[in-house]
Amino acid sequence: SRSLNLAVIPGDGIGQEVVAQGLKVLSAVLPQDVKLETKEYDFGAKRYHATGEILTDADVDALKKHDAILLGAIGDPSVPSGVLERGFLLKLRFLFDHHVNLRPSKLLPGVATPLAGQPEIDFIVVREGTEGPYTGNGGTIRKGTPHEVATEVSVNTAFGVERVVRDAFARAQARPRKKLALIHKNNVLAFAGHLWTNIFNKVAEEFPDVTTEYMHVDAATIYLVTQPERFDVIVTDNLFGDIITDLAAAVSGGIGVAASGNINPSGEFPSMFEPVHGSAPDIAGQGKADPSATVLSVALLLRHLGFEAEAARIEDAVSADLAERGTTTRTTDEIGDALAARVSG
Amino acid sequence: SRSLNLAVIPGDGIGQEVVAQGLKVLSAVLPQDVKLETKEYDFGAKRYHATGEILTDADVDALKKHDAILLGAIGDPSVPSGVLERGFLLKLRFLFDHHVNLRPSKLLPGVATPLAGQPEIDFIVVREGTEGPYTGNGGTIRKGTPHEVATEVSVNTAFGVERVVRDAFARAQARPRKKLALIHKNNVLAFAGHLWTNIFNKVAEEFPDVTTEYMHVDAATIYLVTQPERFDVIVTDNLFGDIITDLAAAVSGGIGVAASGNINPSGEFPSMFEPVHGSAPDIAGQGKADPSATVLSVALLLRHLGFEAEAARIEDAVSADLAERGTTTRTTDEIGDALAARVSG
Ligand SMILES: CC(C)[C@H](C(=O)O)[C@@H](O)C(=O)O
Ligand SMILES: CC(C)[C@H](C(=O)O)[C@@H](O)C(=O)O
Repeated sequence: SRSLNLAVIPGDGIGQEVVAQGLKVLSAVLPQDVKLETKEYDFGAKRYHATGEILTDADVDALKKHDAILLGAIGDPSVPSGVLERGFLLKLRFLFDHHVNLRPSKLLPGVATPLAGQPEIDFIVVREGTEGPYTGNGGTIRKGTPHEVATEVSVNTAFGVERVVRDAFARAQARPRKKLALIHKNNVLAFAGHLWTNIFNKVAEEFPDVTTEYMHVDAATIYLVTQPERFDVIVTDNLFGDIITDLAAAVSGGIGVAASGNINPSGEFPSMFEPVHGSAPDIAGQGKADPSATVLSVALLLRHLGFEAEAARIEDAVSADLAERGTTTRTTDEIGDALAARVSG
Repeated sequence: SRSLNLAVIPGDGIGQEVVAQGLKVLSAVLPQDVKLETKEYDFGAKRYHATGEILTDADVDALKKHDAILLGAIGDPSVPSGVLERGFLLKLRFLFDHHVNLRPSKLLPGVATPLAGQPEIDFIVVREGTEGPYTGNGGTIRKGTPHEVATEVSVNTAFGVERVVRDAFARAQARPRKKLALIHKNNVLAFAGHLWTNIFNKVAEEFPDVTTEYMHVDAATIYLVTQPERFDVIVTDNLFGDIITDLAAAVSGGIGVAASGNINPSGEFPSMFEPVHGSAPDIAGQGKADPSATVLSVALLLRHLGFEAEAARIEDAVSADLAERGTTTRTTDEIGDALAARVSG
């Protein structure tokens, strides 16, 4: 019999509420013969305040034993900006080598978009997750003085770029439109830009059926609001990916439905799946949060572990639920119940 | 009698056409007693191909003698990406210390936006223009091998950040809403982020009547499409400014109307004014380009040199022209004529 052994990290703010719905839908969708085991971890602001710990070596060892990780959200205004983000989220992405940060954008029927004319949006972004300006390289001299100099070093390696570019080409090849866009700023960031562009063009030769284009990141933001239908698969660096996936989420229904996977394709370490929205402390504990993004992240998790049919069932359920939702306001729990009912139906 | 001594750089592609209209409107708006002198320079792809030169020391010395520079666009597909951009545009921004890169975004009545519901958009972005990831610091080792490593170093100084933050506060204070947002990514880029945030908060104490907020760049892209009316003045780093001003241009009527100034506030070196759009080689020479962005850049130029009334007259003319334009298609020249007629009326 098959088994699924998940680490569950509700985290801060609305993380608790949305993760509960994700697990509800997961239980409902899994075939009888799959044994689901979950272990909850208490990472986040509360533990940090109580113990000073964010993510210990023992925590990392424990997390390594799971098939995958489901994360709600980490971050709270009571902790200085960046402390939990870098100490937990980025640390795990680096330690578990989550180099494929996968973020699909699909505007589902009936879902509101800030764009006029309800464009057709259906693309995925493959964001590099372990390099670029996210490495923490850099430093400060003469801190706090009028002569302070602060540097940030974007580190890009052929190894790191090639594997994510290759992953993106494979994903593009598997989609009907077979299109891949590289987004960078190679006219200004010429060292990293040359590496990315060169490897992209080299790998392209192995995928002759994939149509490619290059686009500067600034121009890409224009196309994302004027012609979002032109995108199929996008591959880009860590920081550009961070920026354009928030914009992509905004135009394709908002962060209430934006899912993401921090994927280690080799399976050497567990991959982590999380909604793109944060902990949203302003609405936490009120049953107002939309769990759809978390439920869609569960679908990405299932697909990653080979449960393709179950992943598709969840995505169809969310799509049908959104289409019927209209202007009704339901609680987090009610939406979770409705989705669980649909997937088990 | 007053005088205005301009360097005019038509450049590549549609640059020629739009600059001609900018000068037409400038001549029409200037009071009789102002002596206008212009000198045209041939920078761009043509000269580069003919001579290998992009911007020589002698060129720089010649440009220094002018009160300001009007630029059309530099860049052509016949030249590898980045060569002219870095060799001309960025070089001048650095040499002439254009640290205030000013980019207003205003959705004028009658102008189409990709956003639903015709939101009220009226903000300015003060983008730092001489530091950050644009300095060209960084390098490559083992180029072209599987072990290549390419770095890009973002350099940020207290001196460079403070002057642009101060400029932005002063601009915010002079506007009715008196709001200033700092956009950065201080939770990830902690060295530069700390410098920016710290200086922003320190300078804020001197401007108690300015309401401030901080926003991560990824979140900012969401607000730019869902709540663009919330912005009044934005201050941000060179790269984030590059990205969000293209998005801002897209939502507030497109790059056909987006003007910009590369400003040296001390006046030690001439400031340079240019439309945000590039050389658009696909429509060059066909009289299809909208010269409005260049004409609005002329308004920024005039305001910078103290011709406030004339700047406002140009802005009103463009606004009235756009409101009346409807679906009529006019040539570049016709639009320039119409604007010249309005400002001299
Ligand atoms: C919280 C932050 C560190 C993170 C990032 O920048 O990657 C977030 O914005 C995201 O996109 O997952
Ligand atoms: C052409 C390029 C170097 C330039 C930049 O990145 O600054 C352009 O995008 C701009 O915004 O003026």
